[in-house]
Amino acid sequence: MNKEENILKDVVGIGNAMVDILAPADEAFLAKHNMPKGGMTLVESPQAAVIYEAMGPGVEMSGGSVGNTMAGLASLGGTGSYIGKVHNDQLGGIFHHDLESLGITFRTAPALDSSPTARCLVIVTPDGQRSMATYLGACVELGPEDVGADTIRNHRVTYLEGYLWDAPLAKEAMLKAAKLAHDAGRQVALTLSDPFCVDRHRESFRDLILNHVDILFANEQEIISLYREENVHAALERGRGDCNLVAVTRSAEGSLIATSDMVHQVNAVSVERVVDTTGAGDLYAAGFLFGITHGYDIATSGRIGAIAAGEIISHVGARPEADLQELVRRTL
Amino acid sequence: MNKEENILKDVVGIGNAMVDILAPADEAFLAKHNMPKGGMTLVESPQAAVIYEAMGPGVEMSGGSVGNTMAGLASLGGTGSYIGKVHNDQLGGIFHHDLESLGITFRTAPALDSSPTARCLVIVTPDGQRSMATYLGACVELGPEDVGADTIRNHRVTYLEGYLWDAPLAKEAMLKAAKLAHDAGRQVALTLSDPFCVDRHRESFRDLILNHVDILFANEQEIISLYREENVHAALERGRGDCNLVAVTRSAEGSLIATSDMVHQVNAVSVERVVDTTGAGDLYAAGFLFGITHGYDIATSGRIGAIAAGEIISHVGARPEADLQELVRRTL
Repeated sequence: MNKEENILKDVVGIGNAMVDILAPADEAFLAKHNMPKGGMTLVESPQAAVIYEAMGPGVEMSGGSVGNTMAGLASLGGTGSYIGKVHNDQLGGIFHHDLESLGITFRTAPALDSSPTARCLVIVTPDGQRSMATYLGACVELGPEDVGADTIRNHRVTYLEGYLWDAPLAKEAMLKAAKLAHDAGRQVALTLSDPFCVDRHRESFRDLILNHVDILFANEQEIISLYREENVHAALERGRGDCNLVAVTRSAEGSLIATSDMVHQVNAVSVERVVDTTGAGDLYAAGFLFGITHGYDIATSGRIGAIAAGEIISHVGARPEADLQELVRRTL
Repeated sequence: MNKEENILKDVVGIGNAMVDILAPADEAFLAKHNMPKGGMTLVESPQAAVIYEAMGPGVEMSGGSVGNTMAGLASLGGTGSYIGKVHNDQLGGIFHHDLESLGITFRTAPALDSSPTARCLVIVTPDGQRSMATYLGACVELGPEDVGADTIRNHRVTYLEGYLWDAPLAKEAMLKAAKLAHDAGRQVALTLSDPFCVDRHRESFRDLILNHVDILFANEQEIISLYREENVHAALERGRGDCNLVAVTRSAEGSLIATSDMVHQVNAVSVERVVDTTGAGDLYAAGFLFGITHGYDIATSGRIGAIAAGEIISHVGARPEADLQELVRRTL
């Protein structure tokens, strides 16, 4: 490593910056508000207001897929930055605080007079599953001007969220970031985010992956949907043809990580009680990216991902409660 | 009961409306920020900003002592209203939602161009104790004009928070409410809130209780401090001379409820694991007030208080997670 490589940070994440509002409700609530169970639905402001009014008392915490990953990376002892758009309001202040207080640099200029900070209304059904309605608010203002060339160059990996693809300006920001990263000899990672998101963008996601992505994160359902294959192994074959590294999470069955010449199988970390599975994929990505940016081999990086995912599913919420660095030290 | 009595609601609560922001930290953090352990400190906006910046990522949920009690009352199946001052901002919207969605009427006009909604920065130390720094913000604008005569008349009990006594206008609002309640033949209840609050206002609290309060809630430390007595029994003797009914909570030792001619001893409800004791007093008051407004005798009302308090200490946060009505039905 030369001197420049030494001062690089690990990961710069680009994502939809939002605050989660969690409340319990039954299946009838989901049906009434057209929220597919286990999925994420985009809603406009009036619909978000209707759903929120119908929800019981909530608990608020910072969220967003890549935001969760960056919080996990920091807890593991990694370094990084976040690019995302909040409004200059109280929820934006909370989101900003919750990353900066972990040491993640978050300097994207907030929107001043547009829509408020995004929120994700999270309905937790009695079976512990989460169904989400997201109002993107200020997120749709994230654009290429928010992606600084120096920031991208100064991080080993640029990590992108599939959800960004829903907003035209954010899409441009993603493409700009990917190009800057490759021009500087850095790596680009992408998470497919959500099966519904894959459904919305199948063709353009395939182009994006083929042309701009080195490391792809997906769960089984997402990658099968992306390539319209019969099973995860066939889909993984397709994926490894499109990029260097594909990591597929499979809940209790652990994960599969494919490179051009090998498929690693990594076991899940057993958890006393699965409380809330949301954030499992986000934290797996945190652990895996921490691993590969800290000199661990691919299988060990997957194992770190499994440890981080195991912590997140053992409590409510998608931000780590335990010190993940300590947990990895004890468990690895 | 005549027709008017039949349509009365149970309790109107008046309190400081705030959102809690909870984060873990160690004892050194408390020392550094002059936060007495287990207590509530009032801070101004700049100090609140310094503490918040030093805190790790947080979880937000509606709080406020009487706010917690009203949420508990609603969960028990009771009816009521809340009077308190938020700003017309996002945290104010969250606080409003979290009461109204439970069926508690909250119509106090929000402050429009003053300080933001109050927040309580809650530091949870490794031993599970909570230490709080409260920035009162918009709360200090609560005044007599926010207390409507019809609202007070339409509830059997007017329930006041000792914390309100810290703000001069809110103090006036409390006195107005107490007078309106008694003029209409209703009862007035008060919680002493916090031993530090008692220290700040000992003499004027005694006058308030003697002249305006029918039902007094306190914990052991608070009532001993109020009357500067050696032990809880001596303090209870003094209290029963000042008002009709004194309920003193004593953590694992349950509660003592004194009337002019009797002292009832109520056991605590045993809990598998005490996770977070905050809100125990607030929920005890919710159960007790529910009991006496629903025709239960005093000992049973204390028992309902103990059940509600037992639920709240078994999880993080001071708003109930379980359906308390169902819990009481099963446990009483």
